[in-house]
Amino acid sequence: MHQPRRYAFGRPNEATHPDSIRAALAEFFSTFIFVFAGEGSILAITKMYGRTADLTAGALVAVALAHAFSFFAAIASSMNISGGHINPAVTLGGLVGGRISLMRAVYYWIAQLLGAVVAALLLRVATDGMRPIGYRVTSGVGDWHAVILEIVMTFALVYTVYATGIDPKRGSMGTIAPLAIGLLVGANTLVGGPFDGAAMNPARAFGPALVGWRWENHWIFWVGPLIGGAIAGVVYEFMVMPQEPPHTHQPLAPEDY
Amino acid sequence: MHQPRRYAFGRPNEATHPDSIRAALAEFFSTFIFVFAGEGSILAITKMYGRTADLTAGALVAVALAHAFSFFAAIASSMNISGGHINPAVTLGGLVGGRISLMRAVYYWIAQLLGAVVAALLLRVATDGMRPIGYRVTSGVGDWHAVILEIVMTFALVYTVYATGIDPKRGSMGTIAPLAIGLLVGANTLVGGPFDGAAMNPARAFGPALVGWRWENHWIFWVGPLIGGAIAGVVYEFMVMPQEPPHTHQPLAPEDY
Amino acid sequence: MHQPRRYAFGRPNEATHPDSIRAALAEFFSTFIFVFAGEGSILAITKMYGRTADLTAGALVAVALAHAFSFFAAIASSMNISGGHINPAVTLGGLVGGRISLMRAVYYWIAQLLGAVVAALLLRVATDGMRPIGYRVTSGVGDWHAVILEIVMTFALVYTVYATGIDPKRGSMGTIAPLAIGLLVGANTLVGGPFDGAAMNPARAFGPALVGWRWENHWIFWVGPLIGGAIAGVVYEFMVMPQEPPHTHQPLAPEDY
Amino acid sequence: MHQPRRYAFGRPNEATHPDSIRAALAEFFSTFIFVFAGEGSILAITKMYGRTADLTAGALVAVALAHAFSFFAAIASSMNISGGHINPAVTLGGLVGGRISLMRAVYYWIAQLLGAVVAALLLRVATDGMRPIGYRVTSGVGDWHAVILEIVMTFALVYTVYATGIDPKRGSMGTIAPLAIGLLVGANTLVGGPFDGAAMNPARAFGPALVGWRWENHWIFWVGPLIGGAIAGVVYEFMVMPQEPPHTHQPLAPEDY
Repeated sequence: MHQPRRYAFGRPNEATHPDSIRAALAEFFSTFIFVFAGEGSILAITKMYGRTADLTAGALVAVALAHAFSFFAAIASSMNISGGHINPAVTLGGLVGGRISLMRAVYYWIAQLLGAVVAALLLRVATDGMRPIGYRVTSGVGDWHAVILEIVMTFALVYTVYATGIDPKRGSMGTIAPLAIGLLVGANTLVGGPFDGAAMNPARAFGPALVGWRWENHWIFWVGPLIGGAIAGVVYEFMVMPQEPPHTHQPLAPEDY
Repeated sequence: MHQPRRYAFGRPNEATHPDSIRAALAEFFSTFIFVFAGEGSILAITKMYGRTADLTAGALVAVALAHAFSFFAAIASSMNISGGHINPAVTLGGLVGGRISLMRAVYYWIAQLLGAVVAALLLRVATDGMRPIGYRVTSGVGDWHAVILEIVMTFALVYTVYATGIDPKRGSMGTIAPLAIGLLVGANTLVGGPFDGAAMNPARAFGPALVGWRWENHWIFWVGPLIGGAIAGVVYEFMVMPQEPPHTHQPLAPEDY
Repeated sequence: MHQPRRYAFGRPNEATHPDSIRAALAEFFSTFIFVFAGEGSILAITKMYGRTADLTAGALVAVALAHAFSFFAAIASSMNISGGHINPAVTLGGLVGGRISLMRAVYYWIAQLLGAVVAALLLRVATDGMRPIGYRVTSGVGDWHAVILEIVMTFALVYTVYATGIDPKRGSMGTIAPLAIGLLVGANTLVGGPFDGAAMNPARAFGPALVGWRWENHWIFWVGPLIGGAIAGVVYEFMVMPQEPPHTHQPLAPEDY
Repeated sequence: MHQPRRYAFGRPNEATHPDSIRAALAEFFSTFIFVFAGEGSILAITKMYGRTADLTAGALVAVALAHAFSFFAAIASSMNISGGHINPAVTLGGLVGGRISLMRAVYYWIAQLLGAVVAALLLRVATDGMRPIGYRVTSGVGDWHAVILEIVMTFALVYTVYATGIDPKRGSMGTIAPLAIGLLVGANTLVGGPFDGAAMNPARAFGPALVGWRWENHWIFWVGPLIGGAIAGVVYEFMVMPQEPPHTHQPLAPEDY
């Protein structure tokens, strides 16, 4: 039978194993780099045009490319150390699919949130006190519509993570997985930007919210991405993933683990 | 003799084989992700500027990048499961070149159209009822000129699919094939956008047309891409593809299948 | 001694060898795809804004991305068949470095020019007669300054071709060589665009010049790129390329060829 | 113990070894190509809009893409010859991490600065005397804020170099390392552009400063990047890098070198 939940309760010494600590460090630094560039690009537009500027297509492209390019680099930097999550919704997708233990998931979540907070703090310092902006729902868009949007966009993100970075049949696509994931985030930023900013990532939303102390609509950027990531994990792991022919009565070979 | 049409009538149990079902699922989800981002980027521009806004270079870049990046991710996600078509014209190109059976092609077409329709529906829900826009011919452009444009642009797309993703001599280019194909679609969107929107893909056009109930010029976005894809399949398979020396009187070895 | 000029006079049956014909076909189709997208993006801007529109940063980005993305796809499509030149200046760089025979270079040049002309013709048909624009020197820029600009930009292009696509020490960089070359062309389009259009490629300039019958400054887009490409071939082949220690008195092993 | 400082004092004949000379040549030409495109894109915007034009989102995207794409190509061109530094701060990061000898670092620094100066000179010639612009701190931004910004952005750059290009666990990420590094520079240009131009590279700043004779704030673009690069080298090498189990009393095997 298909048995992916092999890490569901963690390994005994996982919390203090050097690999776990190194993986959490990689998540911390990569999330830091991503949130600094992503949120920083929004502050850069604000610096150019002032706070009350309307969003233009040019500004949307600038923000989308900053997110796409830095998310790509952040994933590539941590892909072979931590799996390159950089996003609590990706980690949840891995957890529900049985690809990561709960212990390790908690480590990752803490590292991601810390990385995002430190990035937002350093942005505030480097810009002489500009208040981070983060995400909110655009006037005229309903809260639940934003939740649906975040669910669908994060589903697309975590589906791409599974298909290009985890599926054993991915083959040479694994080499370009970080780019596919990063650029998909860029594409979806071009979609969701004018509606709700397009977070797809609770850590990306949390750091600037905390440092800028802006909590309006904040729950949306946790609920939507986490639901979308979890659905993607279940869908890919149990519907799309190529399954071995059943070996119910055969002992599992070591390489199945 | 060169005999590529080895799958032309399908294998007996292909319809119910798990690989076929999984491949159709991969086409469904990848087309869903692509159409959501592509059509969504057009709705995002509409949200920012309103319906009557003129197309600007900045908006054209935003729409082209959303298509390029999401098509790349969608192909990379399904490349090694379904071949990464995400487009009925690509599937037709593979069919006329003998690279896919008719049975499997029909599966793919259904999956692609369904994925596009579900994407357009979810966009309509998430945007609180915005009517999808899809494709139409710009005022001042003749229908048959748009057909020619779609033929040439889709020829370029399917030629790139063949050269980077199918040709046995592609070598390491196979690793970057989804990126080459995705970015070429981005380039051609920058060409055809102001003339007819640049669909190059009947599924991409059909989903928003159905959900937005806009059928003006719709035939163009089936006729043009399908002709272009078929021409590319014939041209690459029979003119450009490196051919083995003829083995007319030798039985085909198993690895030829 | 270092002996790269091994193909300098061609092989006896090269002209009619199937590999040569296939390589020329690949150059034809890839140049066609590139010139259609590159010149087409300029016509698309013209369609949106009209002939007399000033060049804006947004339009420059659109044109640069269309060139970068389509040149990348065109190179990836022909890399392992013809070497992915798509540019007479690259072919000249290979010729002076001894990487291609004169016979094959002539084949490539003819194929590239034909591909560019057919692309410009089909653009004229598909746009209901819009006259291709091609390249000219911007008002206020001297002819010889444009020549220098084309020399330097084409040097950079052909240097990148050598370093990522030919140098035996390139290793895994060969996988991303088409992307590096394509995106470098995009970068240099952002540099040279407002000065002289930034051709870096006589075929790219020739097709639209012929079909649009615009010959003003046309010589610049032959002289500059060909000089730049030739310099890069000499510089890389004889200065930068890792050389084996001299074996003057030893017979050359087969793998040296 | 972990002993990465194996090159700290160089090898006896390193200065005259052909590999060292070739590596310095590769750094020279790649830095030349990068600075020509990067600084050139700023002159192109100036040519279009004139000196006093405000920075717009479209212009920022153009400049960021020119830097990202050309830095990527420059790194890919020299990755397997010199390690693809193209930046004195990257070389310093490698030096403090013990990845390069002081002798070789000095060679690289000279080559990088020369390449940048020649690029700025040729730009001045090709544009008929336009004075290079380089970097300065935007009005309203404090010098030390700019230093912090450069530190953080260069930290992100050199961290990505280590994680994707040096870490033995990088695996197939090495293939896309130049792209990750180049696009991260693009992302950070979209962040720092409106504040201080976002150099992250003393050579990139020095060439145009010398040729344009603009020294205001110039120290910032040495101090910030060098501190950021050094911190990244120490952090990655001693905190994140997977360490071998200690072999204190065992002789080092040749493959450790």
